[in-house]
Amino acid sequence: MNGTDHGRQGHAVTMRDVAKAAGVSVATVSHVVNNKSGARIGEDARRRVQEAVVELGYRPNALAKTLSQGSSRFIGLVADAIATTPFAGQIIHGAQDEAWKHGYVLLVANTEGNPAVENDAVTMMLEHQVRGILYSTWYHREIVVPETLHQTDTVLVNCFADDSGLPAVVPDEQQGGRTATEELLAAGHRRIAFLNTTTPSPAQTGRLAGYRAALEAAGIAFDEHLVQLAEPAQEGGYDATAQVLACGATGVFCHNDRVAMGLYDGLREHGLRIPEDVAVVGFDNQDVIAAHLRPPLSTVALPHYELGAAGVRVLLGLEPPVDVLRIACPAIRRQSV
Amino acid sequence: MNGTDHGRQGHAVTMRDVAKAAGVSVATVSHVVNNKSGARIGEDARRRVQEAVVELGYRPNALAKTLSQGSSRFIGLVADAIATTPFAGQIIHGAQDEAWKHGYVLLVANTEGNPAVENDAVTMMLEHQVRGILYSTWYHREIVVPETLHQTDTVLVNCFADDSGLPAVVPDEQQGGRTATEELLAAGHRRIAFLNTTTPSPAQTGRLAGYRAALEAAGIAFDEHLVQLAEPAQEGGYDATAQVLACGATGVFCHNDRVAMGLYDGLREHGLRIPEDVAVVGFDNQDVIAAHLRPPLSTVALPHYELGAAGVRVLLGLEPPVDVLRIACPAIRRQSV
Repeated sequence: MNGTDHGRQGHAVTMRDVAKAAGVSVATVSHVVNNKSGARIGEDARRRVQEAVVELGYRPNALAKTLSQGSSRFIGLVADAIATTPFAGQIIHGAQDEAWKHGYVLLVANTEGNPAVENDAVTMMLEHQVRGILYSTWYHREIVVPETLHQTDTVLVNCFADDSGLPAVVPDEQQGGRTATEELLAAGHRRIAFLNTTTPSPAQTGRLAGYRAALEAAGIAFDEHLVQLAEPAQEGGYDATAQVLACGATGVFCHNDRVAMGLYDGLREHGLRIPEDVAVVGFDNQDVIAAHLRPPLSTVALPHYELGAAGVRVLLGLEPPVDVLRIACPAIRRQSV
Repeated sequence: MNGTDHGRQGHAVTMRDVAKAAGVSVATVSHVVNNKSGARIGEDARRRVQEAVVELGYRPNALAKTLSQGSSRFIGLVADAIATTPFAGQIIHGAQDEAWKHGYVLLVANTEGNPAVENDAVTMMLEHQVRGILYSTWYHREIVVPETLHQTDTVLVNCFADDSGLPAVVPDEQQGGRTATEELLAAGHRRIAFLNTTTPSPAQTGRLAGYRAALEAAGIAFDEHLVQLAEPAQEGGYDATAQVLACGATGVFCHNDRVAMGLYDGLREHGLRIPEDVAVVGFDNQDVIAAHLRPPLSTVALPHYELGAAGVRVLLGLEPPVDVLRIACPAIRRQSV
């Protein structure tokens, strides 16, 4: 407990206390503490103020500084459910690291997609004069931009809104789908199934386009029977097992790691080995699952950390201006191919 | 875009603008906007100010309010890695919901356990005059309290520090271990293995004590051969399979769901069915895994949401004062027992 305590007991050390200890005016303390140019403060007075600041444990009031400077050292992150779902947390990690690097603190509000809470959170951030807001979603999708977001600099992260005029940072789904397919092609597979999601989304269309592009580049004709739809969870992958086997595929690109995990269970029940009988590639590189299946799953990573970090860089004007910045999805090689 | 824009263009509507539009002094606007008692403002002037506030889109400055009131509507949440690991995110969800309920916004700083970042985050929160801080960890453990936390009201969430004088909210590990064991006892099992973690922790000792208490209450002698240690991940559960089978257990209480997932793989390779041949109970109720194994896993939930919510209530003085508030871990029944 020291003199700067302002919570439970004692009183916060004020500029007045510093002035008294240093034998100068409060205005002089303010000039020194806020490092104002233009003020002529003698070296001796400046040193006495600095000593008193250290000795008394004076903490300059960030709010007062913000008021005088017009914007705070906050960047707001409005998330639908990123902090509370076990999926895209690395968006926060990346945004946070990049924000800290540039002297900003990330203020996270997780709204669970509730428009009223979202509006309150944005309003609160505006009142606290954030430098800008990252508006982000836990899975890649198109959004309708809340009106209040136009009142500050906003960057969309893991989502986009055409014609909104707001820059967006999203995963490169098409490249990711192509990369996943190429992993199977490189292992010699020619008959490759794609177990796509039933949910209409940029991931659904982008990964399919990437799958087709990879086949075309390899000189393999597209066969629509090889593309099947599954609910994007373990149950979907498991239920699709018989269909996948019926189409004669020797390799399967699964829309996500959860589908791959379900397919593993299904293939095992058919007495098939991975990758000897059927090779499997996932997507997401989802924590807790991908590295820990038997065998460990080869997959393509969603670049969540980099999405968050790039979002901050776009907000701070540290990236060349683009409407949509697409972040690469790298291959993660393990033992299922 | 409206008149309150203070980000990109135009100028923020000020109290002076409101005063001019309403034909009153700035002091009068301030009294009305800040709802100060003691000031005598005529009904007519008050109404004109209110109309001008709405018409111009004036946004009272939260920072100025905070300065005049001495503390903000922020509650700080300092987390080691909760927002970025796919595990305890519901702590944030619970704290957030409870904070919002009482008119506070949760300011989340995820520090990745880096002491320098942690110190900066706490300092920033103190400078912004938070109402108090929840200091929390992604898994239940003892901590050393950073010195700066004594400068405001602090509640430890999912962690504790004996003799620190700080209240703590933690999961009731012993009750949880007892509950898990009772699920197997209730299904008729008498020879129950406990695959405990190799990591010394409150979970390790608490769940073991609960296991022993449940056996004792059922009149079953403790057999140390039935308690085995495994790395707390899928690989640990898988590697322990032969040992577990060798001790003749018909039911296994796994330290966590990841261990149970690995044990599932091991039991399958031995041609054993769950629960017909061996019943399995997990711990955590971990998202993505527990409900989606084959068969879906019966487990005991870590009450992350409730830990966060209770932490806020303790901070705001809405719970009876205790040194350590233990939150119950409920049974989640699925199909593995």
